[in-house]
Amino acid sequence: MIIIMERNSTEAQEQKVIDFLKESGFDIRHKKGEIYTVIDAIGDKTTITPDRLSAFDGVKEVKIIRDPFRLASRDRKADDTVIEFANGVKIGGDNKPVSIVGPCSVEDYEGLLKVAVAAKEMGCEFLRGGAFKPRTSPYDFQGYGEQALKFLKQASEETGLLTVSEVMDASDIDMMCDYIDVLQIGARNVQNFKLLHAVGKSNKPVILKRGLSSTITEFLLAAEHILSYGNPNVILCERGIRSFDGKYTRNVMDIASIPVIKKLSHLPIIVDPSHGTGQRYLIEPMAKAGLVVGADGIMIEVHHNPEKALSDGKQSLPIPMFKEVMGRLNKLSDALHYEKNCLSANIV
Amino acid sequence: MIIIMERNSTEAQEQKVIDFLKESGFDIRHKKGEIYTVIDAIGDKTTITPDRLSAFDGVKEVKIIRDPFRLASRDRKADDTVIEFANGVKIGGDNKPVSIVGPCSVEDYEGLLKVAVAAKEMGCEFLRGGAFKPRTSPYDFQGYGEQALKFLKQASEETGLLTVSEVMDASDIDMMCDYIDVLQIGARNVQNFKLLHAVGKSNKPVILKRGLSSTITEFLLAAEHILSYGNPNVILCERGIRSFDGKYTRNVMDIASIPVIKKLSHLPIIVDPSHGTGQRYLIEPMAKAGLVVGADGIMIEVHHNPEKALSDGKQSLPIPMFKEVMGRLNKLSDALHYEKNCLSANIV
Amino acid sequence: MIIIMERNSTEAQEQKVIDFLKESGFDIRHKKGEIYTVIDAIGDKTTITPDRLSAFDGVKEVKIIRDPFRLASRDRKADDTVIEFANGVKIGGDNKPVSIVGPCSVEDYEGLLKVAVAAKEMGCEFLRGGAFKPRTSPYDFQGYGEQALKFLKQASEETGLLTVSEVMDASDIDMMCDYIDVLQIGARNVQNFKLLHAVGKSNKPVILKRGLSSTITEFLLAAEHILSYGNPNVILCERGIRSFDGKYTRNVMDIASIPVIKKLSHLPIIVDPSHGTGQRYLIEPMAKAGLVVGADGIMIEVHHNPEKALSDGKQSLPIPMFKEVMGRLNKLSDALHYEKNCLSANIV
Amino acid sequence: MIIIMERNSTEAQEQKVIDFLKESGFDIRHKKGEIYTVIDAIGDKTTITPDRLSAFDGVKEVKIIRDPFRLASRDRKADDTVIEFANGVKIGGDNKPVSIVGPCSVEDYEGLLKVAVAAKEMGCEFLRGGAFKPRTSPYDFQGYGEQALKFLKQASEETGLLTVSEVMDASDIDMMCDYIDVLQIGARNVQNFKLLHAVGKSNKPVILKRGLSSTITEFLLAAEHILSYGNPNVILCERGIRSFDGKYTRNVMDIASIPVIKKLSHLPIIVDPSHGTGQRYLIEPMAKAGLVVGADGIMIEVHHNPEKALSDGKQSLPIPMFKEVMGRLNKLSDALHYEKNCLSANIV
Repeated sequence: MIIIMERNSTEAQEQKVIDFLKESGFDIRHKKGEIYTVIDAIGDKTTITPDRLSAFDGVKEVKIIRDPFRLASRDRKADDTVIEFANGVKIGGDNKPVSIVGPCSVEDYEGLLKVAVAAKEMGCEFLRGGAFKPRTSPYDFQGYGEQALKFLKQASEETGLLTVSEVMDASDIDMMCDYIDVLQIGARNVQNFKLLHAVGKSNKPVILKRGLSSTITEFLLAAEHILSYGNPNVILCERGIRSFDGKYTRNVMDIASIPVIKKLSHLPIIVDPSHGTGQRYLIEPMAKAGLVVGADGIMIEVHHNPEKALSDGKQSLPIPMFKEVMGRLNKLSDALHYEKNCLSANIV
Repeated sequence: MIIIMERNSTEAQEQKVIDFLKESGFDIRHKKGEIYTVIDAIGDKTTITPDRLSAFDGVKEVKIIRDPFRLASRDRKADDTVIEFANGVKIGGDNKPVSIVGPCSVEDYEGLLKVAVAAKEMGCEFLRGGAFKPRTSPYDFQGYGEQALKFLKQASEETGLLTVSEVMDASDIDMMCDYIDVLQIGARNVQNFKLLHAVGKSNKPVILKRGLSSTITEFLLAAEHILSYGNPNVILCERGIRSFDGKYTRNVMDIASIPVIKKLSHLPIIVDPSHGTGQRYLIEPMAKAGLVVGADGIMIEVHHNPEKALSDGKQSLPIPMFKEVMGRLNKLSDALHYEKNCLSANIV
Repeated sequence: MIIIMERNSTEAQEQKVIDFLKESGFDIRHKKGEIYTVIDAIGDKTTITPDRLSAFDGVKEVKIIRDPFRLASRDRKADDTVIEFANGVKIGGDNKPVSIVGPCSVEDYEGLLKVAVAAKEMGCEFLRGGAFKPRTSPYDFQGYGEQALKFLKQASEETGLLTVSEVMDASDIDMMCDYIDVLQIGARNVQNFKLLHAVGKSNKPVILKRGLSSTITEFLLAAEHILSYGNPNVILCERGIRSFDGKYTRNVMDIASIPVIKKLSHLPIIVDPSHGTGQRYLIEPMAKAGLVVGADGIMIEVHHNPEKALSDGKQSLPIPMFKEVMGRLNKLSDALHYEKNCLSANIV
Repeated sequence: MIIIMERNSTEAQEQKVIDFLKESGFDIRHKKGEIYTVIDAIGDKTTITPDRLSAFDGVKEVKIIRDPFRLASRDRKADDTVIEFANGVKIGGDNKPVSIVGPCSVEDYEGLLKVAVAAKEMGCEFLRGGAFKPRTSPYDFQGYGEQALKFLKQASEETGLLTVSEVMDASDIDMMCDYIDVLQIGARNVQNFKLLHAVGKSNKPVILKRGLSSTITEFLLAAEHILSYGNPNVILCERGIRSFDGKYTRNVMDIASIPVIKKLSHLPIIVDPSHGTGQRYLIEPMAKAGLVVGADGIMIEVHHNPEKALSDGKQSLPIPMFKEVMGRLNKLSDALHYEKNCLSANIV
C-alpha cells in the first residue's frame, strides 16, 4: 500500500498515519520527496481498509498495489476454472464454447419446446428461460414463476438440454434448484450482496451478469462475494454497459473485457449479444466478436414467435433465423477451437 | 404511441402492426411520408408494452409520448407530497428542508450518541446510521446488524431525533420497523425489485437512493415500484451518478436532477453530498447547491472520530466541523425558506 | 417531424407553432390525444432546425424522423463507397480488409524503414506515422513536423506502401499532400469543423477518427461536414469511446458500432485497437473482433523499439510480435473474405 | 513517480527500468514486496513521459504523484488569478461574480442592442454573441462572421459592456481582437491544440469551456496549453459534461468541479447553465448552484425573441424573464459576496 500525503501535510499528520499502520502490523518506509511525502506500507491489507487511511488528515491518496479480488484472481489460482455437468458438458478452459439459448421469459410449453428442439438440433448445450423477470416498470410482465420452471424441466427431460433461469430472491433458491441446473444473477442484482451470498451457499453453478455500470474490478468483486461463500462455480457474463449513446444499441458491449478478465481471473466468461445490443441484426456479429476474443460461451435469445413475445421480442431471433445464425457460429467456434488446441499443443 | 416504420418496410408489415394495435384497442392514424411511414396509435399503453411492437418486422422505432411512471407523476397528482411524522416533522412541499445526519455505520453507542447530541443541538431532525452495509468487497466491514438498530433507537429516545437505516433484505423489514422510523434503499438496490415491493408493503416512509447509473426515468420507475405496492411515502435522494472522471470526486452529483424531478414528480427529493462526492471538503458547497435548487433535505455523514470509522471516514465530517458547516447550512435554509414563502405568498 | 406539446399547453401556443410550420412550407396534421397534443409536420426539414421549434412556449419535444446525415446515409447512396488508390489498393465494399501500420510518431528514418519493410513483408498496404501529435499535455513530445513527412515519403518510395499521417491545422494540408496519400483527422478534432471543411476541399482520402464522446449520429455528421465540402472519400475509424472504467483499458471499443454504421452509411469503416485499448496484449483480439464484424481495415501501432518510443510505446507492437500477430490476422481476413465472397455469390 | 512491476516480472526487466530511470537522472529506491516489486523514482518527470516507462516489458502500472498541470496549479501560484479590464471590471479572487449575457448567435443589431441594454440595466458586465458557430450538422446556421463582431463592438460602444465571442480558427484571431474583449474557446475545441496555442499568443483574456468528456485533469491541461504559450488570463467555464441520460437535460452539470478546481488551480471559473442544461427553466436554479459553490461568474443566453432565434432558442431567456431571473441572481451574488468578504476579513 502506498500513501501519498498532501503537499502541505504536517509531520504530526504523517506520524499519525505511520503509527496507525505500525499498530496494524505494517512494515513502513517513509520517503520525503521535494514536494510530496510518500509512505510505503508493506503487509496484509486485509487487516485494514484503505478507506480508513483516506480519512486521516493530510492524506491525499491511498494506492493499493494488489487487486482487491483474491479467490477470483489468477494470482491465487493460475489454471482456468472448468465447470463440468453430470452429462459431461464443460465450460471454461480449453473446452469448446457452449451455447445457451431460449426465450427471455417462458410463456408456454409448446413454444418453449419448439425452441428447445431447435437448440438441440443445432448442438447447443443449454436452454434458458425467465421465470422471474426484473422489469424496470412495475406495469410490465413479471414472469410466470414456478410454472415456468416446470416447463423448463420438462423441456430438459425431453431434449437432454441443461437449463438456466434467473433468480431474483434468496427465498426462491431451494425451490429453483429442484428444476434447473444453473442459477443466473441478472445485471440489476450484481451488487445485491444478500442474493450473491445466498447463491454462494448453493451447490449450483451461477451465471453472473455484469452490471450496467460495473467496472471490471466491481464485477470481479461481485464474483468474489459468491466465491467467498463457498461456491467455486461462477460463470461471468459480459452483456453490455451503459454509455452516452443509446440510440442504435441499448448498451455498449465491452468486448475487450473478455480478454482483460481472462488475464485477471481464472473464471469462465461468456457473452450475451441479445441484451448487449438489443437488436436482432447485431446478435450474430457480436456473438462472433465475443468468440473470437476468447469467450467460453454465448447466450442468445430465441423465441418461437418474437412478435408475440411478452418481453424483449426485439432482440430475439425467430427459430429459422436462429438456425442459420447458429450454424455459422458453430463453424466459427469449431475453427477457433481447432486453432486454439493446435496452438496450445504445439507452440504457446 | 407513434410507430415509425423502416424505410423499406412493406405494406404487409405495416398492416400487421396496424391489425395488432387495433386488436389491442388502439385508435389508428396511418400516414405515409415521402420516405418514412408513421403510424399513430391513440389509446391505453398499459395494455401492451412497446417492446412487443419493436419486435415486429419493419418497425424502426416506437415512441411513447407519455412518461411511463404514473403514480409518481405530477400528471396524476399535481400537489407536492408531504410526509408527516408523529413528532410533527414534515418533509416536502413548502416545509423547511430537513437534515439527516449520522455515521455511515453504527459502531458503538457512545460515539453514536455524541453525533446525535450534536445533531439535535444544530436543529437536525433525523439520525442516520448503517446496521447492514452493502460493501463492494466481501472483505470489508458489513455492519453490526440488529445491535446497531438498538443503539439507534436508544439514541432516538435520548434525543428525540427520528431515525433512518438502510434495509438490504426483505426478511429484515419487520424487525427493522421495531427500531427505526425511515427505511432506506441504497443505490445498489435501486433495481432490486423484490426489495422495492417489500418496502412498498410496509407502512414506513422510504428514502430511495438514485442508482449509480439510473436515468431519471428509471429512478422514478423504481419509486413507482414502491408506490404501486401501496406505500405513498417515498423520499427520493440524489447521491451522484457514475461518470468518466472519478479522480477528484467519487461520483458526479447531478444537481439539475432536483429541479427536473420537482417538475416531473410530486415526491420530495433530498441530496446526499457525502456519497455524492466522497470528499469532506465538498460536503458544504454541494449541500448548498442542493438546497439552492430546491432540495427538501440534506443527508450528511458525521462521525465522532472519522479516522477510526470502519467505513467511509473520508467523506464524514468530524463533530466540530459538522457544527460549523451545519450552522451555515441552517442560515441558507432559513433564507431560502423565507424567500420561498414570501414568493409563494406574494408573487408567483 | 413530430412536435409533442406540453400537457398544459394552450391552443394559442399550438396555433403559433402551426402557423410557423405552415409559413415554412410544411403540411400539418394536428391531433389532440386525451392528454397530449401532437403536431405532425411533413416537409423538408432543411428549411428550419428543430432547435427553433423547441424554443416555442408549450413545446415539450421535437422528434425528427429522418437521420440528420444525408450524404453519408445509405438512404441517399445504397452501394458501399469504395476508395481506390493509384496503385490499385481499394478500401470498402467487398474488398479484403486493408492494414495500416506504423509508429505513433515518426522519430527517425532508420526505425521507420524497419517497420515499413516488415509491414510490406506481411502484406500490409499502408504505413502510418505521426508528424504532428496532439498531446494532452503541452510538455509531451509534439512530433517532428515536415521532416517526419519526408521520412514517410522516402519509406513509401522504398517499399511501395501508401502513407497516412494526421493533420492538425488547415494551413498544413497543402504541404502534407505533397508527401502523403491519406490525411487523418484525430479523435480530438472530430468536431473541429474548420479543419473538417478544409480536408473536405482537398482531394486526398480522409481517415476520420471517432471522438471520445461522439455518438454515432455525431460521428456521421462529422463525416457529413467533410462530404458536404466536396470530398467523397471518407474512411471512418472506430478507436474506442470514453467510459466509466479506464483501469484496464484506456477506452471502451464500441465494436458494435461497426455493423451499426455499415447499416446506416455506405462509407468504409476501419478499427484501431491500439488506441482503442492502449494495451499491447489486446491489439490482436480486438483487431480480430473488428474484422469479424465487418471492418474494412485495421490500424495498428508498430514500433521498432517500443521502449524507446517518444509516444504511445505501451500500445505499440515490437516488430517480431507484429509479424506473428499480422500473420494470424491475415489468416482471419482471408477466411472472412473468402466466406463473404462465397456468401454474396451464392446465398445472400 | 512510482513504477509497479507485474507479478511475474524478471529481475532483468526490473534492472532495465532502473537503468533507464538512472540515465534520465532519477534517484531510485527499489523495493520487493512479497508479491509485487515497486520502484520509486524521485526526480524531474519533465525529462521523460510515463508512457515511455509503460512500454517496458514487465511494467504493470506507472503512478505519477504530482499533477501534470503546472502553470495552472496552486502548487505553483497560491493566490487567485484576478483578470482586470480597462474599465475596471475584475474576474476572480474576492471580486463579485460577473455576468456574461447575450444571444447564442448575433443575428441583427436591433435585437442585440435590446439584449445589451437590458444586460446593462441589470448590472451585467459582459455581452456575449456568436459570430462563428460550431454546429454539429453542416446544414445548420453557421453564424454571420465579421458582421456579427461589428454589431458587438457597436453595442459595446453604446452600452459600455465588455464583449465576448467564440473563436474557431487561429487565422481569425487578429481580426477578432479589433472588435472584442474576450476570446472564447468552445467545448468542441478544448483539445484543438493549435487553436489553444494561437490564443496563448494573443493578449486577450480567454474563456475556455470544458469539453463534453474532459476530465478535470484534461481541462486544466487544456488551460496549461494556453498558459504555456504566454497568456496568463484564462477563465475556465463549466458547461456540463456528457452522461448516460440526455432525456431531460442536454448535459450533466458537474457543479462539484467548481470547488474542486478552485482547490487545484488559481484560475477563475465561471458557469454556463444555458449550455449545461439546454433548458430555459433550469437556467436560474443552476446559475444559483454555481454561484453558491464559488463560481466567479455566470454566462447566460438571452435573446430578444427566442422563438425566432437561429440557434439554441430553447435554452435562451427572453428579455423580460431575464430581468426577473437576473434580479434574483444579483441578490444571491450580493449576499454571497458580502458573506465571503466578512468571512475572509474576520475568521478564515
